[in-house]
Amino acid sequence: MAKKKIKRIAVLTGGGDCPGLNAVIRAVAKTAIAKYQMKVWGVADGYEGLIEDHIEPLSYDDVSGILTVGGTILGSSNKANPFSYLVSPGTRPRDLSDQCLENLRKREIEALICIGGDGTMVSAAAFAKKGLVVMGVPKTIDNDIYGTDMTFGFHTAVNTATEALDKLHTTASSHHRVMIMEVMGRYAGWIALHAGVASGSDVILIPEIPYELDCVAAYVKKRSQKGRRYSIIVAAESAAPRGGKMVVHKEVADSPDPIRLGGIAEVLADELSEATGISCRGVNLGHVQRGGSPTPFDRVLATQLGHHALELLVRGVNNHLVVWKDGRLGSTPLSRIAGKIKTVPKNSELVRAAKAVGTSFGV
Amino acid sequence: MAKKKIKRIAVLTGGGDCPGLNAVIRAVAKTAIAKYQMKVWGVADGYEGLIEDHIEPLSYDDVSGILTVGGTILGSSNKANPFSYLVSPGTRPRDLSDQCLENLRKREIEALICIGGDGTMVSAAAFAKKGLVVMGVPKTIDNDIYGTDMTFGFHTAVNTATEALDKLHTTASSHHRVMIMEVMGRYAGWIALHAGVASGSDVILIPEIPYELDCVAAYVKKRSQKGRRYSIIVAAESAAPRGGKMVVHKEVADSPDPIRLGGIAEVLADELSEATGISCRGVNLGHVQRGGSPTPFDRVLATQLGHHALELLVRGVNNHLVVWKDGRLGSTPLSRIAGKIKTVPKNSELVRAAKAVGTSFGV
Amino acid sequence: MAKKKIKRIAVLTGGGDCPGLNAVIRAVAKTAIAKYQMKVWGVADGYEGLIEDHIEPLSYDDVSGILTVGGTILGSSNKANPFSYLVSPGTRPRDLSDQCLENLRKREIEALICIGGDGTMVSAAAFAKKGLVVMGVPKTIDNDIYGTDMTFGFHTAVNTATEALDKLHTTASSHHRVMIMEVMGRYAGWIALHAGVASGSDVILIPEIPYELDCVAAYVKKRSQKGRRYSIIVAAESAAPRGGKMVVHKEVADSPDPIRLGGIAEVLADELSEATGISCRGVNLGHVQRGGSPTPFDRVLATQLGHHALELLVRGVNNHLVVWKDGRLGSTPLSRIAGKIKTVPKNSELVRAAKAVGTSFGV
Amino acid sequence: MAKKKIKRIAVLTGGGDCPGLNAVIRAVAKTAIAKYQMKVWGVADGYEGLIEDHIEPLSYDDVSGILTVGGTILGSSNKANPFSYLVSPGTRPRDLSDQCLENLRKREIEALICIGGDGTMVSAAAFAKKGLVVMGVPKTIDNDIYGTDMTFGFHTAVNTATEALDKLHTTASSHHRVMIMEVMGRYAGWIALHAGVASGSDVILIPEIPYELDCVAAYVKKRSQKGRRYSIIVAAESAAPRGGKMVVHKEVADSPDPIRLGGIAEVLADELSEATGISCRGVNLGHVQRGGSPTPFDRVLATQLGHHALELLVRGVNNHLVVWKDGRLGSTPLSRIAGKIKTVPKNSELVRAAKAVGTSFGV
Repeated sequence: MAKKKIKRIAVLTGGGDCPGLNAVIRAVAKTAIAKYQMKVWGVADGYEGLIEDHIEPLSYDDVSGILTVGGTILGSSNKANPFSYLVSPGTRPRDLSDQCLENLRKREIEALICIGGDGTMVSAAAFAKKGLVVMGVPKTIDNDIYGTDMTFGFHTAVNTATEALDKLHTTASSHHRVMIMEVMGRYAGWIALHAGVASGSDVILIPEIPYELDCVAAYVKKRSQKGRRYSIIVAAESAAPRGGKMVVHKEVADSPDPIRLGGIAEVLADELSEATGISCRGVNLGHVQRGGSPTPFDRVLATQLGHHALELLVRGVNNHLVVWKDGRLGSTPLSRIAGKIKTVPKNSELVRAAKAVGTSFGV
Repeated sequence: MAKKKIKRIAVLTGGGDCPGLNAVIRAVAKTAIAKYQMKVWGVADGYEGLIEDHIEPLSYDDVSGILTVGGTILGSSNKANPFSYLVSPGTRPRDLSDQCLENLRKREIEALICIGGDGTMVSAAAFAKKGLVVMGVPKTIDNDIYGTDMTFGFHTAVNTATEALDKLHTTASSHHRVMIMEVMGRYAGWIALHAGVASGSDVILIPEIPYELDCVAAYVKKRSQKGRRYSIIVAAESAAPRGGKMVVHKEVADSPDPIRLGGIAEVLADELSEATGISCRGVNLGHVQRGGSPTPFDRVLATQLGHHALELLVRGVNNHLVVWKDGRLGSTPLSRIAGKIKTVPKNSELVRAAKAVGTSFGV
Repeated sequence: MAKKKIKRIAVLTGGGDCPGLNAVIRAVAKTAIAKYQMKVWGVADGYEGLIEDHIEPLSYDDVSGILTVGGTILGSSNKANPFSYLVSPGTRPRDLSDQCLENLRKREIEALICIGGDGTMVSAAAFAKKGLVVMGVPKTIDNDIYGTDMTFGFHTAVNTATEALDKLHTTASSHHRVMIMEVMGRYAGWIALHAGVASGSDVILIPEIPYELDCVAAYVKKRSQKGRRYSIIVAAESAAPRGGKMVVHKEVADSPDPIRLGGIAEVLADELSEATGISCRGVNLGHVQRGGSPTPFDRVLATQLGHHALELLVRGVNNHLVVWKDGRLGSTPLSRIAGKIKTVPKNSELVRAAKAVGTSFGV
Repeated sequence: MAKKKIKRIAVLTGGGDCPGLNAVIRAVAKTAIAKYQMKVWGVADGYEGLIEDHIEPLSYDDVSGILTVGGTILGSSNKANPFSYLVSPGTRPRDLSDQCLENLRKREIEALICIGGDGTMVSAAAFAKKGLVVMGVPKTIDNDIYGTDMTFGFHTAVNTATEALDKLHTTASSHHRVMIMEVMGRYAGWIALHAGVASGSDVILIPEIPYELDCVAAYVKKRSQKGRRYSIIVAAESAAPRGGKMVVHKEVADSPDPIRLGGIAEVLADELSEATGISCRGVNLGHVQRGGSPTPFDRVLATQLGHHALELLVRGVNNHLVVWKDGRLGSTPLSRIAGKIKTVPKNSELVRAAKAVGTSFGV
């Protein structure tokens, strides 16, 4: 390809927090600066900084020592959609994408690396349509981004949830209780499934497999009759009974990132206590799942994804999402994945393994 | 003293779960069996097992390998008061203490070691008045037992809370948020104070220092104006505004161990969001704080307390609580401490240190 | 297939310790007992128990609660090769494989599940040749088993090594030192590579890429001249200089599992101190890398591998190794993998990513 | 007292690394700046920076966010004694203390806060004699500073050692081995004692109680005969046999901070293997014990010590060491503690508790 070499890039992080963001930023910037002599800019607070022109040079030293640090040194924002931006409350959302492009152009920035979830990728794809060179890096603790088997941050969230479940295990067994832990997963049950298997939870409730309260109650009572006077239940925030609706503790209509104190854990604790006569308690880790230093696995994965994003850019790939698929790095067109969700297959290998070791999915 | 040597003892664990219970049981049993050739019984599920005659011999092997395990191998119960026991709902509580004594006497058990909190000690003191040789070992993650500077389990709970606060820190700083974490502490703010100082929280709310919402809001806004667009608040579940009442999410009148999904964290998140215009989120770790393997510190403390309880018994001390006071082991009469609570002095060294490094107590 | 259904199986664990062994045993036994109504035996201490007839029934309760526990409830042995067994020192090794088969036959055990490394699989393949139905489950913290992308235990070992490297990082940076950490990996550098990338180590030394001392020294000195007065080096125990030999601290000729206090870390610390004039210190975690509760990832992987082994047996597959390949479960004939080693490709994606973020491989 | 108020202070950190140093620096600086409107300087690399005039202003922002970070932002040095400083190899050490005082005077710095171990305090006391206002804050993971019951960093080191011992436990029990872990403690066995009790180690070897190899061997063999085919031994680096000498792997005569790969663990592993015929392995965590984020306990202790040092200065106390004694903060004249060591009393409560639960001290 007779492509002009890209020499000036910008990077942004969008959406909810996710351990490993800094590791990606570091890998992108170090590779760009040291290996390819590029100049790198960091956009503050996701697309908001692109709109507001908060775009600063990012040096090699700026990204040194951030590999193990949770969060993002660039900041993020949840709501900023440059193609439909709410400038002030009560007004109509405006398309500020040209303003964004202008902010890049005046710095002669040739490519934008967008680290984010599905919402971030929808905007990235739209920018690509307008001619911007774009590369996406998938980010979500929920692991529900289509086209990639694994996203960084997921693993750290599973660790945090499993550690909490391990702790609940000892207290539940001493006190003859049912403990229900709600974990994140707005559309998919990946965290609940993995943390549930990893902790040896008795019941796993995920949105992909609507549960029946009677089944859960019967399972818990059967355990109790067998002398196992406690049970651990892990439930995705989006788990719902067959024919019923997902419990939303508090409607936060304008937020893509609502935290629900309560939600499924609280509701189910009440319902199960009544149905079984056994003391049931709910716990919700909330945003704790989004924080902390990434696990070694996530640091390695994030480093690889960031490095690969740069390598693809250099090789002239454009408008793609970097992915980890079938045990290796790759990429897929943003247009193919934007707006889609990867859910847990009802009969996946892991679901079957969980069932084989005695776990109930409430059906 | 011409005391007959004690040769047969029983041990029970009462009240809510607490990391280190097994370490105490192990120290008591190993010291009794190996050093003093005693015979040891374990009472199942706290005073409930004493009433129901669930009392089984405990061997050296039974307590091997349990040092690092959370929970209690004996089981516990929260509600069982032998002097006022609710045999069945709708009936009047009965005094079953003689039945308990008979269950011990028929096994020729001469002394009872009660590991528990204030409720457990009140009953222990009452048994002592009826002539039973009793030794108490203080247990509470809340660290509010009168007469002892430190209780095992407290330290592990502070660790769990601090780890979660550390995680919230990274996500709050990336997303410009106020995070409010509710921690346990029904009557005292020890966990909130220690975890707050350990995590460098910006605001610490404890029941001993009633807060003013305006002060908290002003503090958060001032930080925001200085460019620190996030704040971490840690609140004891029993924290309350000046002149206001403690938030109780759900009245659980019959339970000494209610879990509140929500409570102060949820209420304060709403109030602060409104007062500051900044996005505030609440998290409540709930029973996760009661579980898990004890920290090395708690294992050492629990081992020492258990060992000391036995040594005191052997030396003829009776009706005492083993304590850690002024940097050393000791004991104090149960009658002197039962029914009292140790709260955080408003002007303690640690409160002053916290203020000096910039922490607000909301006043 | 008109195969007779397998109804009686035995399971053994061979070779060095590895976090996740219990998780595999649990998955195998629970699946066999609860899903397929099989009877399960556990063989004590690997092939040694097969020779010595230490084979006991394994119940559902026996494997409950072991998921999170490190080690193996069955015990293991390193040296026992049933086809060449050293009955007593000074005598000639004997082939006791028929005795092993007889010990299985007299219990009517139809199939043997061997969880182990390459040595264990060589014997398993030899038993298969003699007609025994055999299924292998790959186990090694070194991750060097051929035919599988990932083995359980590897991940936990990488975590342990990375946590230690994170700790060395802070002390090295405060004291202007070079810290060299030796990690396990007898034939392959997987742990060093992953822990090195995860910790942001400055230099990674693996046997697949022979290093040059001059390069390492130059790299360290260059960092020092740039004002970074410390460096972290992670070295596989089997790393060796170009043209030189692997450092073996102590010849333990008869042991497949030698621990070397010292080895590469110690030797390199001396050499580098002299070459650079900077204070260099070595650390070797030794067997700490083999212990502890498996990470959530390893618990999930081990559960899946154990479950899949059973499913394959039920479907009539024989003489295979269960593998995790290209992001999914599968299996491969034992004959195809026994005696082979999976090493780090010199130009693998991860090696290139490590180089791109500034890591030296000493060449 | 009609003392002039101190308005300008400097702080330095000396000696080996220790988790919590940054927490002290932060508490000192924040208290000084925000509560007392002082100006604060940081001295680079301990006394070396005082000699070399590397003294820079320290702002409130400089110390924000360092509470949880291991190491010291100021840097440290092990060898620099201003009263006997080796300017260049081969020359005679010189007294550069006047040069140090001049470097402080020219900035009008009125007081120096020295955070360090015994060596640091000896110099601090000598500066005090020359008229400098000095306040010492005790620092050592070894916990052997005279006059204080507890030093920050000790607790974190015990945690690190205990976690490693917990991991060795699982692998030792699966493989029927004796594992010997060497921990730090150059003159005292505090880490070995606490980590040994916390991990339930079978044998604890400390310099205060010279061991007999025969006793250790007999203990291990007795356990083996009882069917417990493994033992865990924790040994302070300075532990020595009765009548024998401490093992020093490598003489590093000029270094107050030698790391010994090998040492007692390696030597004892050889001797015990021979004496018992059981496979014995040694591990030495080395500098890993000095690193990492401080535990919540150490963060709280360090914060309190730093704050108290400032408060004492303000109240006119001079030439003292801040201490934690009998469960509370206090201080003691530097002249009373410099040059002394706090060792483990042979018959301390904790030693007796350890013995009572079955631990051997090798005698």
